[in-house]
Amino acid sequence: MKKVFIEDLKGKTGKATVFGWVHKVTRLKTAGFFQLRDATGIVQVVCDPEQLEGLKLETPLRVSGEIVETDRQAAGVEIHLSEMEALADVAYDLLPFSINQRTMDAGLEKQLDERTMSLRRPRTRDVFRIQQEIVTAFRSILIGQRFSEIHTPKIIDAATEGGSEVFTVDYFGRRAFLAQSPQFYKQMMVGAGFERVFEVGHAYRAELHATHRHLNEYVSLDVEMGFLQDETDLMDLEEALIFSIFDELEAECQPQLKRLGIELPARIPFPRIPMSEAKRKLEAVGVRTGTTLNAAQEKQLGEILEEETGSPFYFLTEYPLAKRPVYTYPGEKEGTSRSFDLIFRGMEITTGGQRIHLYQDLRDRMVAQQMDPDAFGFYLESFRYGMPPHGGFAIGLERFTMQLLKLDNVREATLLPRDLNRLTP
Amino acid sequence: MKKVFIEDLKGKTGKATVFGWVHKVTRLKTAGFFQLRDATGIVQVVCDPEQLEGLKLETPLRVSGEIVETDRQAAGVEIHLSEMEALADVAYDLLPFSINQRTMDAGLEKQLDERTMSLRRPRTRDVFRIQQEIVTAFRSILIGQRFSEIHTPKIIDAATEGGSEVFTVDYFGRRAFLAQSPQFYKQMMVGAGFERVFEVGHAYRAELHATHRHLNEYVSLDVEMGFLQDETDLMDLEEALIFSIFDELEAECQPQLKRLGIELPARIPFPRIPMSEAKRKLEAVGVRTGTTLNAAQEKQLGEILEEETGSPFYFLTEYPLAKRPVYTYPGEKEGTSRSFDLIFRGMEITTGGQRIHLYQDLRDRMVAQQMDPDAFGFYLESFRYGMPPHGGFAIGLERFTMQLLKLDNVREATLLPRDLNRLTP
Repeated sequence: MKKVFIEDLKGKTGKATVFGWVHKVTRLKTAGFFQLRDATGIVQVVCDPEQLEGLKLETPLRVSGEIVETDRQAAGVEIHLSEMEALADVAYDLLPFSINQRTMDAGLEKQLDERTMSLRRPRTRDVFRIQQEIVTAFRSILIGQRFSEIHTPKIIDAATEGGSEVFTVDYFGRRAFLAQSPQFYKQMMVGAGFERVFEVGHAYRAELHATHRHLNEYVSLDVEMGFLQDETDLMDLEEALIFSIFDELEAECQPQLKRLGIELPARIPFPRIPMSEAKRKLEAVGVRTGTTLNAAQEKQLGEILEEETGSPFYFLTEYPLAKRPVYTYPGEKEGTSRSFDLIFRGMEITTGGQRIHLYQDLRDRMVAQQMDPDAFGFYLESFRYGMPPHGGFAIGLERFTMQLLKLDNVREATLLPRDLNRLTP
Repeated sequence: MKKVFIEDLKGKTGKATVFGWVHKVTRLKTAGFFQLRDATGIVQVVCDPEQLEGLKLETPLRVSGEIVETDRQAAGVEIHLSEMEALADVAYDLLPFSINQRTMDAGLEKQLDERTMSLRRPRTRDVFRIQQEIVTAFRSILIGQRFSEIHTPKIIDAATEGGSEVFTVDYFGRRAFLAQSPQFYKQMMVGAGFERVFEVGHAYRAELHATHRHLNEYVSLDVEMGFLQDETDLMDLEEALIFSIFDELEAECQPQLKRLGIELPARIPFPRIPMSEAKRKLEAVGVRTGTTLNAAQEKQLGEILEEETGSPFYFLTEYPLAKRPVYTYPGEKEGTSRSFDLIFRGMEITTGGQRIHLYQDLRDRMVAQQMDPDAFGFYLESFRYGMPPHGGFAIGLERFTMQLLKLDNVREATLLPRDLNRLTP
């Protein structure tokens, strides 16, 4: 008989065959029940007590039976068992932690060690259902605005972009590197006639941080756009993009958001605060700042601005040029740049900005920063063929998910994280 | 004035501002014309001859003028220039090759060296427009069938899957590897309750081949599905998936397919030929085969089958177990397996099959193949929690694109290829 997904049972009548894992077992003297869980939901199966004999939690089953309407179950239906088959054995009587309870009785490291198990917990998997919808919405909105999806190499020849925090690869005896971002390539693809590009791909940072917000391999949602006026085009785009993502989540992920107790932020325009004003605002409440804000100060400013505007987001604009990469477009005011960070609930989730698009300007900046233009080879050379004004931004997918779902650790928003200490599973 | 994309000009009247690159310049005594190209198309701009002075090919421009209907242009409209601005200079009077001609006057290596330039050629970019639609269709069809999109790590601890052809990474002083496929992880994610997963991600093969069909970094379209009956479910899925991709291309990429002179294959069910029958068929025409078919024989069989059935595809089924990875599900007939290749126009574009899902069977197979089960750590362990019957397949994106578009070299279907000799751009 054809497989039916559990969430499709409601409204159906007659016989059905469902597949899933044994989620919970209830043994009574005269009746037996178990909950069967598949990717889409949980349904109660009613059977004779003796049919539960030897039935271990998490056994994968094929279950056939009668669909019966009921008010006692959230699903609105239950199945009266006629036949079942165990498709594999579970080796353990005791699971490493329970996944059928409201709370999780294991720490994050243990959950990550046993990822095949911990992800079976519906609330843990909900995070990734929402994350998938974020990515799906991101793509479809950009494609609707004529962005092209690109796939750029992650093995690269030179680690010119960001200092020493880079992983090395042995490439047929040559020293190569893992890309810290698709920055150079996405700029080049704008110039290669795509005009507007995005990429959903891995980025690698060999940072020696082991914090709640760092990953050494993460998914970067990269955007780059040609023929723009200035960086306000990018902020407009990113704000609209995030609002549209929220609309999608509202339409597609209500059950998951509800289970996780998450309300989506109101669609209030993100305040745009120049760095100088940000510092004044913090100094007004007695906080001493440096050239830029540190993580704690970004958070504190976020609280002030959310109080003022209602938005948990803000753009920190006119970022000091000296703190930005060589390709950053200088701002009108001395020492500033046409670049920004986007802060969400106190944490930076995006860096973006306009890039220098004139060959000579870019070359001069490299020289001024004691960089060797020749080391930038094909990247710099591509500016000699007529690069339009352009800019872009990148959103760290796991961080965005973490902040949206108010998770404590970015690893909770990562299927199989890679960090300083973790290379498995 | 707001930017208008060139393909949106048709049917509009009045003034418009378009942005793009100078594609072609025509100087007459009393009139001047140039073609402006953006990501969406090409439009003719009519101006005074003196306005063309010093205008180099490929200069990025902002152009404002009057939209005028015309029969002389394929676009149906032209622009009568009122104002234009060069947004950057082109350093060269002579481009490395011409991109405004029907034929390309440079070899592939040269085109790849100058990728920012060669991709500006519309027909070259068409390949990637079609490729993007393949990926978009792949995702949306699978999401419609309740597959979850996953992102799995590419830096891995042990290269247990496929022998020696693997790149090594220095991971904080530890020896790590780049994943040859998400095989183990996609299986685990099926078992982790997602049931059906797919991934669009990079895969790495340190193969010392430098052929027209090998890449060292490629995009793998991976699918894995739980609770299946056997491998025929997978072949049914893949066939339906490819037909749906063709439907999408037909709807979305007509202009690109037409420019490239490509007709999509008819939707004829793919013949499914067991290896033993494949060998018989070849032997009947005097070809001597080994345990499996080599590339030339796969091609020859494809020609025979296309003649017979009209399909340029065929599944080569009941693949010899000894030639397959350890996790391959044995077939009913001695020495066979529940696995298959999909051959398209004579080239393998997919390997797939059912996997062993019982812990003890998998462990026994490892031992029988002189492998150390302990080396498979978390992968093998995850089978102790109740893994349902499952299987999957992977399509090499660049190869599929190459075969569909009848390209001579897989690098033509790669934005920025990585091979034995190429690590830049």
